Amino acid sequence: MADFICSADRLKEFSAKVLCAHGLPLCDAETVAGGLVHANLRGVDSHGVARIPIYAERLRCGLVNSAPDIRVIKDSGAALVVDGDNGMGAVVTMHALELGLQRLERHGSVSIAIRNSNHYSAGSYYAARAVEQNVAMWLYSNAPPTMAPWGGAKRYLGTNPYTFAVPAGKYDPIILDMATSVVARGKIILAAERGQRIPAGWAVTLDGEPTTDAKAALAGSVLPFGGPKGYGIALMIEIVSGILSGAGFGPRIGDLYEDFSKPQNVGAFMQLSSIDAFMTIEEFNQRMEMLVGEIKACQPASGVDEILMPGELEARIARKRQREGIPLAQHTYEALQRLGESCGVPLADVAQPAQA
Amino acid sequence: MADFICSADRLKEFSAKVLCAHGLPLCDAETVAGGLVHANLRGVDSHGVARIPIYAERLRCGLVNSAPDIRVIKDSGAALVVDGDNGMGAVVTMHALELGLQRLERHGSVSIAIRNSNHYSAGSYYAARAVEQNVAMWLYSNAPPTMAPWGGAKRYLGTNPYTFAVPAGKYDPIILDMATSVVARGKIILAAERGQRIPAGWAVTLDGEPTTDAKAALAGSVLPFGGPKGYGIALMIEIVSGILSGAGFGPRIGDLYEDFSKPQNVGAFMQLSSIDAFMTIEEFNQRMEMLVGEIKACQPASGVDEILMPGELEARIARKRQREGIPLAQHTYEALQRLGESCGVPLADVAQPAQA
Repeated sequence: MADFICSADRLKEFSAKVLCAHGLPLCDAETVAGGLVHANLRGVDSHGVARIPIYAERLRCGLVNSAPDIRVIKDSGAALVVDGDNGMGAVVTMHALELGLQRLERHGSVSIAIRNSNHYSAGSYYAARAVEQNVAMWLYSNAPPTMAPWGGAKRYLGTNPYTFAVPAGKYDPIILDMATSVVARGKIILAAERGQRIPAGWAVTLDGEPTTDAKAALAGSVLPFGGPKGYGIALMIEIVSGILSGAGFGPRIGDLYEDFSKPQNVGAFMQLSSIDAFMTIEEFNQRMEMLVGEIKACQPASGVDEILMPGELEARIARKRQREGIPLAQHTYEALQRLGESCGVPLADVAQPAQA
Repeated sequence: MADFICSADRLKEFSAKVLCAHGLPLCDAETVAGGLVHANLRGVDSHGVARIPIYAERLRCGLVNSAPDIRVIKDSGAALVVDGDNGMGAVVTMHALELGLQRLERHGSVSIAIRNSNHYSAGSYYAARAVEQNVAMWLYSNAPPTMAPWGGAKRYLGTNPYTFAVPAGKYDPIILDMATSVVARGKIILAAERGQRIPAGWAVTLDGEPTTDAKAALAGSVLPFGGPKGYGIALMIEIVSGILSGAGFGPRIGDLYEDFSKPQNVGAFMQLSSIDAFMTIEEFNQRMEMLVGEIKACQPASGVDEILMPGELEARIARKRQREGIPLAQHTYEALQRLGESCGVPLADVAQPAQA
């Protein structure tokens, strides 16, 4: 799968330069590029630099505001509403997170609802920043409609991602970062691009029939994880990210790839709790080490080599890719190369063909 | 299934009297009885008055503190740690909720971690109180170990219930209240008591083998809903309810029915956000009515008559049972009758045989 390899640092630099060339200030371009490369490092290539061409295209069309005035429009101390002014999702979300982290000193916990934002790539980027500050984080976002409500045959909800993270002492932080569909739609997009079939149970066609055709699945609806219970979680996310925030919801949210008629108006909801508002970080880390140690020491089910915690596999991949470089598939390389050439940022200097 | 019928009010009165006779002050007995009857009203009989005999037994044995000194032991304004002093779960949880509701006026949002508590029955009881105050609520609790970690064959986590609720204008409030196992263990307990088999996919035996035998399932492990994603949610709940709160976690939590050697030390985590910290309740209700109306108007999947929202079916059952009475199965009636007789509170005055 790896046709080209490049270092995380150089890929981030390339990505930031390309986004800069499309109008983003350097610091914002670095925030966005940081999130995308963070996803690639963790092996979540569906949310990595493969998104740069569409991000650049929406910037070029003026569908995303490259110089947003991100403002707190309602402030109750430990509850904030942030208007992202149609800025890049990563810029708005990281801005809100930094505001929230400041609030924790005075309040211990804070909830932030975000409106007028855009696709923020993988939630683990923000989660990693929170846990590094010894903060527990929940982050939710809604998304363009791709999932039918439970019992329904027509798309209404997005794949509404759920992110939860806490530090875990000597272990990798717990980072649960998942779509509330059976799989992230990004994986179906990648499969469609590669002409691959998808497993049964991921999605249904426009008529509600099961399918393994990635393109038919993209036209139809993805299925929620865990039936009505997972659907309930996706609905919770739609309510707090879309309704309570004042953002778009349901079919009002434009598709990132296909709707060039209006801004996305994605919403998000973030809950931050400072660990030391509950107990010392030393005590928390010690207790987390007991929990993780005990779980990993459980007798594995038959056929399982090792019990992994949420985010552990991704952290291992990140260490490997930090060391050995990030693999890029040929079609991603080519798309980035074309885009780089169009704005004078050569990719050839950054990515080398992988050795067979 | 309905062998006896009784009015909700009279069943609540009976339940409170029985709990009083086991040492609870009247107001606390009413809080506990209110929660149990609330569950019965909503059709969640597994979490209703069928729990009174075990609650009474634990009170009688001194395993639950009938006069707890429930205290805030750490206070950061919008983040509190509450020590339940081994009080009844409903008493501790409702106390924490009322504290939290007061805090919302000053902070907009508040997070409360609870330690040294006990089984609180169904989360919907507290959720109903929150939504009536125009507050969005998340409530989590850990529970005695009955679920293996993902990839493991040995019980470690509980069925860790997840509750989320918001008002929904003219519609019934959204109340998502669910175990993070495929089904609540209470349903397996009821099946075992009734000698019924359980569906495949609910649980595995002590050796990790699939089973439909309810008793073997109770001895083995329940399965999380939605595979590794649902397990991730159950783990999140264990971390914030069990680790961050300072409560018991994993195998340290005693089984409600079987462990008479120590208090349970169940933990919980509650997140409250005042709707009006985000937008006016009028605007929120209007937006919720759009969301719910649009979802319910979706084309139903084949074989589905009507699209229901989380909590809608339960609210309908509650209206019916409020009107027509709560049905009690014979074995529940007999257990309550014996218990009532032992403390001079006759059930025969309350429950009438159902008409065939």
